[in-house]
Amino acid sequence: MTEQAPPSSSDGLGAREREGTIELLGAVAYGTISGFTRMATDSEMARDLRLKRALAGMAVKEFHNHEILSDRITQLGGDPVTAMAPFEDAFEAYHARTRPRDLLEGMVKAYIGDGIANDFFVEIAKYIDPQSREVIERAKESDHRDVDTIVSAVREGIREDSRRGGPLALWGRRLMGEALTQGQVVAAQREALSDLVLGLSHDRPGATLEEVGHLMQRLTDRHQLRMGRLGLSA
Amino acid sequence: MTEQAPPSSSDGLGAREREGTIELLGAVAYGTISGFTRMATDSEMARDLRLKRALAGMAVKEFHNHEILSDRITQLGGDPVTAMAPFEDAFEAYHARTRPRDLLEGMVKAYIGDGIANDFFVEIAKYIDPQSREVIERAKESDHRDVDTIVSAVREGIREDSRRGGPLALWGRRLMGEALTQGQVVAAQREALSDLVLGLSHDRPGATLEEVGHLMQRLTDRHQLRMGRLGLSA
Repeated sequence: MTEQAPPSSSDGLGAREREGTIELLGAVAYGTISGFTRMATDSEMARDLRLKRALAGMAVKEFHNHEILSDRITQLGGDPVTAMAPFEDAFEAYHARTRPRDLLEGMVKAYIGDGIANDFFVEIAKYIDPQSREVIERAKESDHRDVDTIVSAVREGIREDSRRGGPLALWGRRLMGEALTQGQVVAAQREALSDLVLGLSHDRPGATLEEVGHLMQRLTDRHQLRMGRLGLSA
Repeated sequence: MTEQAPPSSSDGLGAREREGTIELLGAVAYGTISGFTRMATDSEMARDLRLKRALAGMAVKEFHNHEILSDRITQLGGDPVTAMAPFEDAFEAYHARTRPRDLLEGMVKAYIGDGIANDFFVEIAKYIDPQSREVIERAKESDHRDVDTIVSAVREGIREDSRRGGPLALWGRRLMGEALTQGQVVAAQREALSDLVLGLSHDRPGATLEEVGHLMQRLTDRHQLRMGRLGLSA
């Protein structure tokens, strides 16, 4: 992982396309390492050891995804640390604005935030080379047992104190809002990344404006499904 | 891991020995999950992404060790969560009393604290059945690259600001002192565990008072080696 491969064109990527792909992988890689830290930190709020282990397990999964993504960046001739740097501010801003005040908020964030990030990365991955796409798709898988444990614990928390349902529904909406805000900041700043999505740096079809609209709809639909699974109105 | 095996005597352990072994594994398992959470939380203090990844990597290793230990508890007919519960207070007290104030203290703690814990567990493992011993010995391995990264960063931090050397040496001594204090609290409270170490619950030889003295000397020697590696006087 620390070995850096020399830039090669054996992957069939043009220079501009490679630049955009490394940017995208860098964004996802920073997202996973910051997700790791936040989830692991939030797991400290869990007194129940089963929940602590489930949150820790989700965090560890993020770390492994981070390693897979870093390896792919290196393969493409990039340096993972350099590739991640431009995305630090956006992810840290997201986490600073969505600091859970208690375990229930932390668990909702782990499930909802992770879900939004995964959906988003998989949507964007449609516009990149097949090998990098596979890496991103592989990196989104979570351990279902951990996720199920968290979802059940949130539902039970709301059942035990029904006054929490309303504020937690607002919390879920805020997570989505902040994620979209930071996503737009990133998209506006990173030209090579935008070119990649819009198909300007490779000869596969890019996203049309209409498709970007559909993408937003799919993100919203899936967010609502997850909110429903938690027993919250989206 | 969540499947619980029925108690069996196919492992050749007597009831009292099994009880002590499950206690020991429970202590180590709680140590690894709390080590995971603290190291991961401390990794948040790292702005340098290489250090963040190294601390996160050490934390993740702890989590995997936790899983291996939990599996062995289950194999012996125990429940990991129940087995860990009695050790929560001692480990949480250790962490509460040794909360790093900055990244340098955090890195010294990751290296020194983890080292003391590993030495201690391996010493105790001498008195348990070979299969459980192997599990504990396997669980102490760290990724040397991560550890080397941390050690170099501490040495560099002291080189850059030599006034930090003295306080960090004191910090290292305090980590050792707090670890020994909590270790003694645990030993005094857990009868089955003490019986196991003293050889009262199985027919292999247990530790004599003289051997306990040697054990303490070995722990101290290895602690001094690590302090020296960081460039600190023990």
